[in-house]
Amino acid sequence: MMNKVFSAEQLDIKDPLRDKAQAFSLPANTVYLDGNSLGPLPKAAKQQADDVVNEQWGKGLITSWNKHQWIHLPQIVGDKIGGLIGAKSGQVICCDSISINLFKVLSAALKMHPSRKVIATTRDNFPTDIYMVQGLLDLLGSDYSIRYVDEACIGSQLTDDIAVLMLTQVNFRSGNKLDMQSITEQAHQKGILTLWDLAHSAGAFPVSLDACNVDFAVGCTYKYLNGGPGAPAFIYVAKRHQAQYQQPLSGWMGHSSPFSFSPDYAGDNSVKQNLCGTPGIIGMSILDAALDVFEDVSLKAIDEKSKKLQAFFIAEAKRAGLLEKFSIVSPNIDNRGSQLAFAHDHAYAICQAWIAEGVIADFRAPNILRIGFAPLYLSFVDIEKAVASLTKIMNEKRYENDEFQQRQSVT
Amino acid sequence: MMNKVFSAEQLDIKDPLRDKAQAFSLPANTVYLDGNSLGPLPKAAKQQADDVVNEQWGKGLITSWNKHQWIHLPQIVGDKIGGLIGAKSGQVICCDSISINLFKVLSAALKMHPSRKVIATTRDNFPTDIYMVQGLLDLLGSDYSIRYVDEACIGSQLTDDIAVLMLTQVNFRSGNKLDMQSITEQAHQKGILTLWDLAHSAGAFPVSLDACNVDFAVGCTYKYLNGGPGAPAFIYVAKRHQAQYQQPLSGWMGHSSPFSFSPDYAGDNSVKQNLCGTPGIIGMSILDAALDVFEDVSLKAIDEKSKKLQAFFIAEAKRAGLLEKFSIVSPNIDNRGSQLAFAHDHAYAICQAWIAEGVIADFRAPNILRIGFAPLYLSFVDIEKAVASLTKIMNEKRYENDEFQQRQSVT
Repeated sequence: MMNKVFSAEQLDIKDPLRDKAQAFSLPANTVYLDGNSLGPLPKAAKQQADDVVNEQWGKGLITSWNKHQWIHLPQIVGDKIGGLIGAKSGQVICCDSISINLFKVLSAALKMHPSRKVIATTRDNFPTDIYMVQGLLDLLGSDYSIRYVDEACIGSQLTDDIAVLMLTQVNFRSGNKLDMQSITEQAHQKGILTLWDLAHSAGAFPVSLDACNVDFAVGCTYKYLNGGPGAPAFIYVAKRHQAQYQQPLSGWMGHSSPFSFSPDYAGDNSVKQNLCGTPGIIGMSILDAALDVFEDVSLKAIDEKSKKLQAFFIAEAKRAGLLEKFSIVSPNIDNRGSQLAFAHDHAYAICQAWIAEGVIADFRAPNILRIGFAPLYLSFVDIEKAVASLTKIMNEKRYENDEFQQRQSVT
Repeated sequence: MMNKVFSAEQLDIKDPLRDKAQAFSLPANTVYLDGNSLGPLPKAAKQQADDVVNEQWGKGLITSWNKHQWIHLPQIVGDKIGGLIGAKSGQVICCDSISINLFKVLSAALKMHPSRKVIATTRDNFPTDIYMVQGLLDLLGSDYSIRYVDEACIGSQLTDDIAVLMLTQVNFRSGNKLDMQSITEQAHQKGILTLWDLAHSAGAFPVSLDACNVDFAVGCTYKYLNGGPGAPAFIYVAKRHQAQYQQPLSGWMGHSSPFSFSPDYAGDNSVKQNLCGTPGIIGMSILDAALDVFEDVSLKAIDEKSKKLQAFFIAEAKRAGLLEKFSIVSPNIDNRGSQLAFAHDHAYAICQAWIAEGVIADFRAPNILRIGFAPLYLSFVDIEKAVASLTKIMNEKRYENDEFQQRQSVT
């Protein structure tokens, strides 16, 4: 067994983000390795929930639409998110879910490219992304089609019949991270519009939408952005496209003048056109406060710590002999997001047994144990505990216990 | 001046719903006549907000999807709403916004009627309803069209080229209430599917979707259902249509097996197919608790009290000479919802001056003072105060003050 160069405690002392965990309300005796499914509760969000419910709604009632700026919240929150994904003000808006937002952007992109009838994506994209294309194409009829490109060599498969290339930057299972800059550039060379899904990117590492010349992006806020369960998603529309952008979910909140109640839809000539119905204010307001956790940290620092946590996890797992039992299906550290995926035939039961020990990770069908690294609240001591607990489970073969094998609807 | 038959105090004593106001957290010195825009905070919702944020999210983290039934919340809440709109279990689901839900249902309805290309609605429908049709038709191309029917004689304008008739039961401005039973029957005689928007109906009076043989309905929950600002909406799909129902916003939560992550969309053969992305759990959980206010009251009792409150308002206004200053644009009491609309050139400023006096109503462009009657928390003494205050404003012409004339973004 190798000796550690630094102990977990030493690494925590050297960690510039070590105090950030105090910004979260975390349950005791839990190591949370599932912040890539649902981030934990920031203390500021807890306070905001109280304020938006009891003061703003309870006391302000309808007048809070003005008094507490509810009407501007989608833009305020959008710009905050923009700051975390390399987008200058006025290009990001907070609204609806990723799925619905994909429908808006895909429709708008096809309209901007009337002579092209193909949407390209990877077969291993997150299912809802693909389902939304299928739903849209079914509505549009047989002129249009979806084409699957191989994640490993996207550039070589780009042809000039493709209207829009829809990619998730970080694969939800393996963590494989695509090169946004190079792929966007290659797509543009063929006149293809790009749509990036940042579900596993936003809040995890630096993203540079403007600098990469990305056309459109969507993302969710309940993973690394800690916005709460089912918190509203976002859309990025590059400034240069906003004048001709037209999306079909043309609800009143995206109208250029919603309260004039005019009989005809006239979409706002800005990213605001992506608003549709009345936004869920309570969830969005909680998200607004949750984002303030990022105010005094850089995504670069978060990314650096994530890489260290991952390296430490692997080193510890190796020392414990775990790497002979699991196969790592994630690419190397420079080509993956803030997660590690291990394949094991008993991944589901292992995950359940781990949860029973207070270490929460998650399972992704068919056989992936998925481990998320969220540097804002994870310490090196947490990782050490998690590996120790996994080692015990594997050595004792606890995953063979019946209680851990019963499937629940969600993990 | 006529004498009152009963004083406001006497009417309150006789009111069987008089204690129900205690279920709400209402600000002091406020008469709230805008529950038809945003219902006030139920105390149970306040408690639930605390629980879902701090316990379920904060402590349960990702495991709450199972432990606290988050995954089933759209159906649980849907069935609760169903009980208030005359829908048997399994036909209502809580999701997204009315606007987005209209898009789903309209698309599905057109698909069920491939030979018909017309969506009919009233020109004075709530704008977002019309905008959503416009957005959908723009996507579908020139084969399809929207046709406006006159609210006053819908039956005679129904022809067999209409695929779906989309109506809002209660007009958002005037309060005019359509005869759901008779119109649905007339539509069916022409083979037309019906889609009812219950924004100003649900929670205000008895609605009988099943008994009226309605095909589809949508509605919001932040008005008379008191679910909170931007609380999620709902969809009703009659059982008989669920097998062939196919809506295009085909996100993973509407898949028959969302966590199998299969590459192809296979919509659930139930109302659940209307789910799209991950639902906003915090807002929906608060709504879930808010709906419990209705557990021990009947919609019939609510409707009866609303009619009495409205009659009392009008009688008081008449006594005060107000009816010579305003014209009532609402139909008579049997043909309107739980609201009264008065037209006045200075309606906006009057509304602002009223708010300054602690009476919150709302303004609807171009010249409507809209007064909502929500019997769960309004007393006859409230109405008496509101009329007294309005009388003062009118007699003193306070609406001429500059401070009340400045428009804000929302009212």
